[in-house]
Amino acid sequence: MSLVIDGLQYANWSEKIFRQMRAGGVDAVHVTITYHETFRETVLNIEQWNRWFETYPDLIFQGRTAADVARAKETGRTAIFFGSQNPSCIEDDIGLVEVLHTLGLRFMQLTYNNQSLLATGCYEDHDTGLTRMGREVVAEMNRVGMVVDMSHSGERSTLEAIEHSSRPIAITHANPASWHPALRNKSEAVLRALAESGGMLGFSIYPHHLAGGSSCTLDSFCEMVARTADLMGIGAIGIGTDLCQDQPDSVVEWMRVGRWTKSIDYGEGSASAPGFPPMPDWFATNEDFPQIAEGLLRIGLSDADVRAVMGENWLRFFETSFGRQSSSVWSI
Amino acid sequence: MSLVIDGLQYANWSEKIFRQMRAGGVDAVHVTITYHETFRETVLNIEQWNRWFETYPDLIFQGRTAADVARAKETGRTAIFFGSQNPSCIEDDIGLVEVLHTLGLRFMQLTYNNQSLLATGCYEDHDTGLTRMGREVVAEMNRVGMVVDMSHSGERSTLEAIEHSSRPIAITHANPASWHPALRNKSEAVLRALAESGGMLGFSIYPHHLAGGSSCTLDSFCEMVARTADLMGIGAIGIGTDLCQDQPDSVVEWMRVGRWTKSIDYGEGSASAPGFPPMPDWFATNEDFPQIAEGLLRIGLSDADVRAVMGENWLRFFETSFGRQSSSVWSI
Repeated sequence: MSLVIDGLQYANWSEKIFRQMRAGGVDAVHVTITYHETFRETVLNIEQWNRWFETYPDLIFQGRTAADVARAKETGRTAIFFGSQNPSCIEDDIGLVEVLHTLGLRFMQLTYNNQSLLATGCYEDHDTGLTRMGREVVAEMNRVGMVVDMSHSGERSTLEAIEHSSRPIAITHANPASWHPALRNKSEAVLRALAESGGMLGFSIYPHHLAGGSSCTLDSFCEMVARTADLMGIGAIGIGTDLCQDQPDSVVEWMRVGRWTKSIDYGEGSASAPGFPPMPDWFATNEDFPQIAEGLLRIGLSDADVRAVMGENWLRFFETSFGRQSSSVWSI
Repeated sequence: MSLVIDGLQYANWSEKIFRQMRAGGVDAVHVTITYHETFRETVLNIEQWNRWFETYPDLIFQGRTAADVARAKETGRTAIFFGSQNPSCIEDDIGLVEVLHTLGLRFMQLTYNNQSLLATGCYEDHDTGLTRMGREVVAEMNRVGMVVDMSHSGERSTLEAIEHSSRPIAITHANPASWHPALRNKSEAVLRALAESGGMLGFSIYPHHLAGGSSCTLDSFCEMVARTADLMGIGAIGIGTDLCQDQPDSVVEWMRVGRWTKSIDYGEGSASAPGFPPMPDWFATNEDFPQIAEGLLRIGLSDADVRAVMGENWLRFFETSFGRQSSSVWSI
């Protein structure tokens, strides 16, 4: 089977899910390890991952470089790459970018829906773009090799991040707004700028990002992928399922509300549907990745294009994104 | 010039000192980065080191494996290996052992003079040996590849650490008590057990550990080294200067007092001499390492033995100490 890389998951991890990754042929996953957690709380989450790596070394290991994807393939395991969906983990301290990179963080969103110290989230009324600290942190992320992820950011902030970043950025889990006009989905202007700068889009299968929601068909999803390939080029797109398997609804509340309000914010949900929406029947677990590949073939993508979308594009992006950017003769 | 490795320093680091390391031909140093600091405070110290690594890449870089010593030699730089003189940095959380190892910590003392959560310091009235957590943390340090350092521990705790640890431990900076009966110096029983278990002793040049204090002659120091080689074997000894160059006296007060008392504890000093004692005239900066090698040759050690003491023994110890101890077929 060809390479499979998922650009984002946040499951309630367990041996069952790790085994499903193997059954689905998943070679590498960018996993969210933290949302609104402080640095110390994020480290506690890393400690939990260290326990999983120690307990299930035959199923998973921590990915640090693109070469770890090949190692995963060769040894029949899944490489786990860490990411954060909010910059809370660096607090107000730019020095924590390098520290967290050393601990394996390879992606960080500049915002999660709200204004952060760095940029504006997609749910704010006014998007003022990158902040002063935001510009500094993007430069530091560029230096150490941590990918700027703008999945939950506002339009202006995203365009400014693309412009300001000296290395290509990613939108790891979102879809085109032209297909489904959710606040979290992205405009053509953003998708074009992303592609022109060498960045990557990961297609989300989170129902709120799908035309038709949980009822979205595989064909509709795959047609959207093909249309986006026409817009962005086949090399700029991959999968970013946003799979939140087995999470209790208390977790989606934490994701949305964190500690920033005493009220309930329903985010993409609503008072009548506050929890995680049911996944479409063609993608419920990691075992379903082959169905996506089959769906893409069925609507007419070539073998080579399907391989690119299912993993090869992310791998190429990993190869140029995770290493240190050094202007010095002294490589680390 | 042959290999030079220093088993412990805690200087007030500066470009001047990094250049003195180069002038003295120092290939690698175990540097103390934290005493009584919490985990978060220790990470702030690591951030400061990251800035130095970024600012002076032509002089220093972070050492992580024994191979970095060869890289230092080849590129004319000094490899900096992190260590802690107290387990405050892991707080009450065994998961922080692996996290700090990932951040580069390669040595950790189980105690600094006082009782810790792990063992008993050399200034306590009663030494009850390794605690329950102490045994667990030693096993975890063994697993990830972090050296147990008992320089500031009590006799019983030190013997128990040697016995309990599945990998050789170190006393990075101390001398035989038979030469100078300081509380911090070590008994023959400890030194024999250390050598028999494959451990290492680093000879301290901190004046309170020297016969004659600041007036100790180089010949006296070198004769002590030779006598200790007779006791422990030439392969079990190295240098661990404990050089605290350019530190203000406020730092020695922090080292001794931390936050554990509201009174002043003078440690190895006294009310009349509370500060750092003056270094002996033959070792004041890193530029003076060649004098130690010359002194050892002068009192009759062979070329090969001097090379062993000045660096080759530490290198061999590094080679077997810093990597992960895995019972699994899955190496990291």
